[in-house]
Amino acid sequence: MLGECLENVRKNVPLVHNITNYVTVNDVANVLLASGGSPIMSDEPEDVEDITSICGGLNINIGTLNQQTIKGMFTAGRKAAELGHPILLDPVGAGASKLRTETAVKLMDEIKFTVIRGNISEIKTLALGSGTTKGVDADVADAVSDETLDSAVRFVKEFAKKADTIVAITGAIDLVSDGDKCYVIRNGRPEMGRITGTGCQLSGLTTAFVVANPDNKLEAVAAAVCTMGLAGEIGWSRMQEGDGNSTYRNRIIDAIFNMDGETLNKGAKYEIR
Amino acid sequence: MLGECLENVRKNVPLVHNITNYVTVNDVANVLLASGGSPIMSDEPEDVEDITSICGGLNINIGTLNQQTIKGMFTAGRKAAELGHPILLDPVGAGASKLRTETAVKLMDEIKFTVIRGNISEIKTLALGSGTTKGVDADVADAVSDETLDSAVRFVKEFAKKADTIVAITGAIDLVSDGDKCYVIRNGRPEMGRITGTGCQLSGLTTAFVVANPDNKLEAVAAAVCTMGLAGEIGWSRMQEGDGNSTYRNRIIDAIFNMDGETLNKGAKYEIR
Amino acid sequence: MLGECLENVRKNVPLVHNITNYVTVNDVANVLLASGGSPIMSDEPEDVEDITSICGGLNINIGTLNQQTIKGMFTAGRKAAELGHPILLDPVGAGASKLRTETAVKLMDEIKFTVIRGNISEIKTLALGSGTTKGVDADVADAVSDETLDSAVRFVKEFAKKADTIVAITGAIDLVSDGDKCYVIRNGRPEMGRITGTGCQLSGLTTAFVVANPDNKLEAVAAAVCTMGLAGEIGWSRMQEGDGNSTYRNRIIDAIFNMDGETLNKGAKYEIR
Repeated sequence: MLGECLENVRKNVPLVHNITNYVTVNDVANVLLASGGSPIMSDEPEDVEDITSICGGLNINIGTLNQQTIKGMFTAGRKAAELGHPILLDPVGAGASKLRTETAVKLMDEIKFTVIRGNISEIKTLALGSGTTKGVDADVADAVSDETLDSAVRFVKEFAKKADTIVAITGAIDLVSDGDKCYVIRNGRPEMGRITGTGCQLSGLTTAFVVANPDNKLEAVAAAVCTMGLAGEIGWSRMQEGDGNSTYRNRIIDAIFNMDGETLNKGAKYEIR
Repeated sequence: MLGECLENVRKNVPLVHNITNYVTVNDVANVLLASGGSPIMSDEPEDVEDITSICGGLNINIGTLNQQTIKGMFTAGRKAAELGHPILLDPVGAGASKLRTETAVKLMDEIKFTVIRGNISEIKTLALGSGTTKGVDADVADAVSDETLDSAVRFVKEFAKKADTIVAITGAIDLVSDGDKCYVIRNGRPEMGRITGTGCQLSGLTTAFVVANPDNKLEAVAAAVCTMGLAGEIGWSRMQEGDGNSTYRNRIIDAIFNMDGETLNKGAKYEIR
Repeated sequence: MLGECLENVRKNVPLVHNITNYVTVNDVANVLLASGGSPIMSDEPEDVEDITSICGGLNINIGTLNQQTIKGMFTAGRKAAELGHPILLDPVGAGASKLRTETAVKLMDEIKFTVIRGNISEIKTLALGSGTTKGVDADVADAVSDETLDSAVRFVKEFAKKADTIVAITGAIDLVSDGDKCYVIRNGRPEMGRITGTGCQLSGLTTAFVVANPDNKLEAVAAAVCTMGLAGEIGWSRMQEGDGNSTYRNRIIDAIFNMDGETLNKGAKYEIR
């Protein structure tokens, strides 16, 4: 059950090394702490091998990549792979610039990722070498909806199989697949898109879930996605008149802080295809 | 009317490229989302041309400049200018260090800015090559008050005309001029100075407003300044016993999230000189 | 009395130069503003001398160090020392990587620090050249508790004397010593460890307290530590059902914003050994 995956994070306190963007990094750290995990940030190439060695997993997010941090990503990724740590790639803005697309593709070539998490546009870029990324949000035309669900499920399964990794595509409907099974998840609120970094937060969270559930990785990713979405629902239910996206950000992280396995089991809305 | 400028942001969802400091960048992103805009951050010289090309405007803030991001500012600025995008300069700390002053001055020399927004000390540095910046806050002796208003209005008009740009000087009284007209704005609360980055947030917001109101740029800047100040007033009115500057930060962004054109029209306090 | 140290921060509005990590930098800025101080951030080697010259003190935090910011730390540190400014070192993650340990040790060799603040593991690394840092949190086996208090007090006094600096070790029980006296402080809440950056915030705050109390530095450091811990207690008392670590973060900073000297005097829990 998904709830057990969350409980395992709280029990095991996974230490996660994050090379992530400076826009949402504080929220990533607080979400990791809310879930029961523990964050470390380090992107300097000379520092990352030591840091990743004391961690249980690595979260690579290219949201504000630069030439130095790109070196750090490759160095940390190779070391984490050597140590058998779970590694997640969040290809923020792949498709929006040549550097982002190339960096994400090269990272995939050189490093065996455990999970790749992005919006449909970013994942399409990685899968097809195309896609029309509008900044860091999924292009609306490419959104996963009930109308496009069948083809989207086919797509994510194929890409996961081809890339030999777990792929999580998040949006109005979230898809999580290892190439064989596909979780179709309907938690979350549209207003989460009005907060910066809910995707980045989910990537940090997902890394912690996978580290804490080594024998159950696909379910762990699905549990992390449901946790974030359910927290968005719980957080929204606590909004009061006059509250907006800044307070909503706090309430989502608070909801993760307070969530237990039973709540997740009851609130998770998914089917497996 | 100013309210229409805000409604246009919500309708047009302007995508804004921000090269901004890592201190307040998260709030800048959330303020842009609160207003109905959409933020992207990228400062790597090899990345910025592609990113700025898919955006509608560029916000350059030198708050934590370094040699690499300075290169990014020039590269992005030239590209945005070539594409005819609105470009804003926030010369954080101009006057406080040689590097900041020189960078701001060189940026003005090479790039045609649509708007320059800063406190009186920073703007004086750019205008006169002098000023006594105390960190990133306006020197009190140079504050715009009722006593100094006439000369300050004269100053901002002259500088706007000379620099051929819209200039926004923000403080207890805000001035927005294109060299011809000058908005004298009295929204806001003194407690906003106890939050880091309300100026940086306003710069992001102003860029979005100008992108969404291409035929009405002066009014758009004034509308952004009134929106931020009015949000400061609304946010303060929601403060409860025991709340302080951290909660106030959230309430201001929340107030922008919830503001509509009518509220802005009713709450904006300004005269045109 | 400790309360006077806080009142002096509010009166003197110390300007603090921070070279700190990008994870918690926004909270460091808002905590400084909450206390009555004023923050500036700058890490570019060409910028830091000018910036530190207009400030009253320097806060060096190696949490996300890189080769460029390390240069900035040394350059700023030498300049601040030359000007006689108080300088604080927060050796985040010393012991967790070679680069962090070496950087912290070299900084101590070259720059005379007024205060060094870290967890027991980091301080032990600096003192003994050993320790088992688990990321940025103190190793549990090395925690300062009632059982280990005598030896810990001995240790902090010896290290402070040897390093000729004030040393603050923070954890469940906080120790502040100049080598002669040792404050044993029992403010705070264990839940503060579930927020990222309460240590970083305390380092910024401590720098402001020392700048504002030049003739009373040991007491100033103890006052800053008590302020942070007491704010954690007050913030926790304001938590409502459903609140979590993100809201708690805001409430702690809010509590500092609202704290006066009398509240600190009444709430501070310490003995001097």
